[in-house]
Amino acid sequence: MYGLIAKLRTRPDQRDAVLAILLKGTGSMPGCLTYIVAKDPSDPDVVWITEAWEDKASHEAALALPAVRAAITEAKPLLAGFETSIPIEPVGGVGLRQTA
Amino acid sequence: MYGLIAKLRTRPDQRDAVLAILLKGTGSMPGCLTYIVAKDPSDPDVVWITEAWEDKASHEAALALPAVRAAITEAKPLLAGFETSIPIEPVGGVGLRQTA
Repeated sequence: MYGLIAKLRTRPDQRDAVLAILLKGTGSMPGCLTYIVAKDPSDPDVVWITEAWEDKASHEAALALPAVRAAITEAKPLLAGFETSIPIEPVGGVGLRQTA
Repeated sequence: MYGLIAKLRTRPDQRDAVLAILLKGTGSMPGCLTYIVAKDPSDPDVVWITEAWEDKASHEAALALPAVRAAITEAKPLLAGFETSIPIEPVGGVGLRQTA
Protein backbone atom coordinates (compact mmCIF):
# COMPACT_ATOMS: atom_id res chain seq x y z
CA MET A 1 0.00 0.00 0.00
CA TYR A 2 0.96 3.63 -0.48
CA GLY A 3 -0.22 6.60 1.53
CA LEU A 4 0.18 10.30 2.07
CA ILE A 5 -0.33 12.74 4.92
CA ALA A 6 -0.57 16.24 3.51
CA LYS A 7 -0.99 19.65 5.09
CA LEU A 8 -2.37 22.41 2.85
CA ARG A 9 -2.59 26.06 3.70
CA THR A 10 -5.50 27.87 2.06
CA ARG A 11 -5.77 31.55 1.36
CA PRO A 12 -7.58 33.33 4.20
CA ASP A 13 -11.23 32.29 4.60
CA GLN A 14 -11.07 29.82 1.73
CA ARG A 15 -10.90 26.59 3.72
CA ASP A 16 -14.54 25.63 3.44
CA ALA A 17 -14.45 26.21 -0.31
CA VAL A 18 -11.32 24.05 -0.64
CA LEU A 19 -12.87 21.28 1.47
CA ALA A 20 -15.96 21.26 -0.72
CA ILE A 21 -13.86 21.02 -3.89
CA LEU A 22 -11.73 18.20 -2.47
CA LEU A 23 -14.80 16.22 -1.43
CA LYS A 24 -16.63 16.49 -4.72
CA GLY A 25 -13.54 15.72 -6.82
CA THR A 26 -12.60 12.51 -5.06
CA GLY A 27 -15.68 10.33 -5.03
CA SER A 28 -14.59 7.68 -7.48
CA MET A 29 -10.86 6.98 -7.63
CA PRO A 30 -9.76 3.43 -8.54
CA GLY A 31 -7.30 2.00 -6.03
CA CYS A 32 -8.19 4.57 -3.37
CA LEU A 33 -8.55 2.86 0.02
CA THR A 34 -9.08 6.01 2.06
CA TYR A 35 -9.07 9.73 1.31
CA ILE A 36 -10.11 11.82 4.28
CA VAL A 37 -10.09 15.59 4.40
CA ALA A 38 -9.98 17.37 7.74
CA LYS A 39 -9.80 20.81 9.30
CA ASP A 40 -6.98 21.77 11.62
CA PRO A 41 -8.80 22.89 14.78
CA SER A 42 -5.97 25.24 15.75
CA ASP A 43 -5.50 27.02 12.42
CA PRO A 44 -8.47 28.25 10.36
CA ASP A 45 -6.58 28.12 7.07
CA VAL A 46 -5.17 24.59 7.30
CA VAL A 47 -6.51 21.39 5.68
CA TRP A 48 -5.11 17.92 6.42
CA ILE A 49 -5.53 15.09 3.92
CA THR A 50 -4.80 11.48 4.85
CA GLU A 51 -4.77 9.00 2.00
CA ALA A 52 -4.20 5.29 1.44
CA TRP A 53 -3.93 3.66 -1.99
CA GLU A 54 -3.40 0.16 -3.27
CA ASP A 55 -0.04 1.32 -4.60
CA LYS A 56 1.81 4.42 -5.78
CA ALA A 57 0.69 3.81 -9.35
CA SER A 58 -3.01 4.05 -8.44
CA HIS A 59 -2.34 7.36 -6.68
CA GLU A 60 -0.55 8.72 -9.72
CA ALA A 61 -3.28 7.47 -12.05
CA ALA A 62 -5.90 9.29 -9.95
CA LEU A 63 -4.10 12.58 -10.49
CA ALA A 64 -4.83 12.16 -14.21
CA LEU A 65 -8.58 11.57 -13.80
CA PRO A 66 -10.72 14.38 -15.28
CA ALA A 67 -12.63 14.93 -12.01
CA VAL A 68 -9.41 15.14 -10.01
CA ARG A 69 -7.73 17.43 -12.54
CA ALA A 70 -10.80 19.68 -12.46
CA ALA A 71 -10.69 19.76 -8.66
CA ILE A 72 -6.99 20.67 -8.66
CA THR A 73 -7.59 23.45 -11.19
CA GLU A 74 -10.50 24.79 -9.16
CA ALA A 75 -8.71 24.61 -5.80
CA LYS A 76 -5.34 25.97 -6.88
CA PRO A 77 -6.18 29.71 -6.75
CA LEU A 78 -7.60 29.21 -3.26
CA LEU A 79 -4.41 27.64 -1.87
CA ALA A 80 -1.41 29.35 -0.31
CA GLY A 81 0.61 26.14 -0.60
CA PHE A 82 1.50 22.66 0.59
CA GLU A 83 3.24 22.84 3.96
CA THR A 84 3.84 19.15 4.53
CA SER A 85 3.58 16.03 2.40
CA ILE A 86 4.67 12.83 4.12
CA PRO A 87 4.65 9.56 2.16
CA ILE A 88 3.66 6.58 4.32
CA GLU A 89 3.31 2.86 3.80
CA PRO A 90 -0.03 1.75 5.32
CA VAL A 91 0.01 -1.73 6.80
CA GLY A 92 -3.57 -2.24 7.95
CA GLY A 93 -6.28 -1.12 10.31
CA VAL A 94 -9.88 0.01 10.33
CA GLY A 95 -11.41 1.89 7.41
CA LEU A 96 -9.36 0.72 4.46
CA ARG A 97 -11.92 0.25 1.72
CA GLN A 98 -12.12 -3.29 0.41
CA THR A 99 -11.41 -3.29 -3.29
CA ALA A 100 -11.04 -7.00 -4.05
CA MET B 1 -15.85 14.10 13.92
CA TYR B 2 -12.55 13.95 15.75
CA GLY B 3 -9.25 12.68 14.43
CA LEU B 4 -5.57 12.32 15.16
CA ILE B 5 -2.38 12.07 13.16
CA ALA B 6 0.33 10.57 15.34
CA LYS B 7 4.00 9.79 14.79
CA LEU B 8 5.57 7.20 17.07
CA ARG B 9 9.22 6.32 17.30
CA THR B 10 9.90 2.72 18.25
CA ARG B 11 13.03 1.36 19.84
CA PRO B 12 15.44 0.06 17.19
CA ASP B 13 14.15 -2.93 15.23
CA GLN B 14 10.84 -3.01 17.13
CA ARG B 15 8.60 -1.47 14.48
CA ASP B 16 7.11 -4.70 13.14
CA ALA B 17 6.33 -5.83 16.68
CA VAL B 18 4.63 -2.51 17.46
CA LEU B 19 2.60 -2.63 14.23
CA ALA B 20 1.38 -6.15 15.07
CA ILE B 21 0.31 -5.06 18.56
CA LEU B 22 -1.49 -1.98 17.22
CA LEU B 23 -3.36 -4.03 14.63
CA LYS B 24 -4.56 -6.73 16.99
CA GLY B 25 -5.59 -4.29 19.73
CA THR B 26 -7.78 -2.11 17.57
CA GLY B 27 -10.22 -4.41 15.80
CA SER B 28 -13.40 -3.45 17.60
CA MET B 29 -13.61 0.11 18.86
CA PRO B 30 -17.04 1.75 19.02
CA GLY B 31 -17.14 5.11 17.27
CA CYS B 32 -13.95 4.41 15.32
CA LEU B 33 -14.36 5.49 11.69
CA THR B 34 -10.81 4.80 10.60
CA TYR B 35 -7.62 3.69 12.36
CA ILE B 36 -4.77 3.07 9.96
CA VAL B 37 -1.23 2.19 10.95
CA ALA B 38 1.62 2.81 8.54
CA LYS B 39 5.37 2.60 8.22
CA ASP B 40 7.49 5.65 7.46
CA PRO B 41 9.39 4.59 4.32
CA SER B 42 12.30 6.92 5.17
CA ASP B 43 12.81 5.95 8.82
CA PRO B 44 12.82 2.29 9.92
CA ASP B 45 11.77 3.12 13.49
CA VAL B 46 8.78 5.37 12.76
CA VAL B 47 5.08 4.44 12.78
CA TRP B 48 2.31 6.79 11.63
CA ILE B 49 -1.25 6.38 12.87
CA THR B 50 -4.16 8.21 11.25
CA GLU B 51 -7.47 8.02 13.07
CA ALA B 52 -11.03 9.31 12.70
CA TRP B 53 -13.71 8.99 15.37
CA GLU B 54 -17.35 9.95 15.66
CA ASP B 55 -16.30 12.40 18.38
CA LYS B 56 -13.60 12.99 20.98
CA ALA B 57 -15.58 11.07 23.59
CA SER B 58 -15.53 7.86 21.54
CA HIS B 59 -11.75 8.16 21.16
CA GLU B 60 -11.33 8.59 24.91
CA ALA B 61 -13.69 5.70 25.64
CA ALA B 62 -11.63 3.45 23.37
CA LEU B 63 -8.52 4.13 25.45
CA ALA B 64 -10.32 2.48 28.36
CA LEU B 65 -11.25 -0.72 26.48
CA PRO B 66 -9.48 -3.82 27.85
CA ALA B 67 -8.05 -4.79 24.42
CA VAL B 68 -6.72 -1.28 23.86
CA ARG B 69 -5.26 -1.02 27.36
CA ALA B 70 -3.58 -4.39 26.87
CA ALA B 71 -2.13 -3.21 23.55
CA ILE B 72 -0.79 -0.01 25.13
CA THR B 73 0.80 -1.98 27.97
CA GLU B 74 2.37 -4.42 25.53
CA ALA B 75 3.65 -1.74 23.14
CA LYS B 76 4.97 0.73 25.70
CA PRO B 77 8.36 -0.93 26.37
CA LEU B 78 8.95 -1.10 22.60
CA LEU B 79 8.43 2.63 22.06
CA ALA B 80 10.98 5.43 22.25
CA GLY B 81 8.18 8.01 22.31
CA PHE B 82 5.51 10.04 20.54
CA GLU B 83 7.10 12.60 18.24
CA THR B 84 3.98 14.22 16.88
CA SER B 85 0.30 14.13 17.74
CA ILE B 86 -1.91 16.42 15.69
CA PRO B 87 -5.63 16.64 16.44
CA ILE B 88 -7.74 17.10 13.32
CA GLU B 89 -11.40 17.56 12.56
CA PRO B 90 -12.34 15.19 9.71
CA VAL B 91 -15.02 16.50 7.38
CA GLY B 92 -15.57 13.64 4.95
CA GLY B 93 -14.06 11.56 2.23
CA VAL B 94 -13.50 7.95 1.26
CA GLY B 95 -13.01 5.20 3.85
CA LEU B 96 -14.87 6.57 6.86
CA ARG B 97 -16.61 3.49 8.21
CA GLN B 98 -20.37 3.78 8.28
CA THR B 99 -21.60 3.36 11.83
CA ALA B 100 -25.24 4.35 11.55
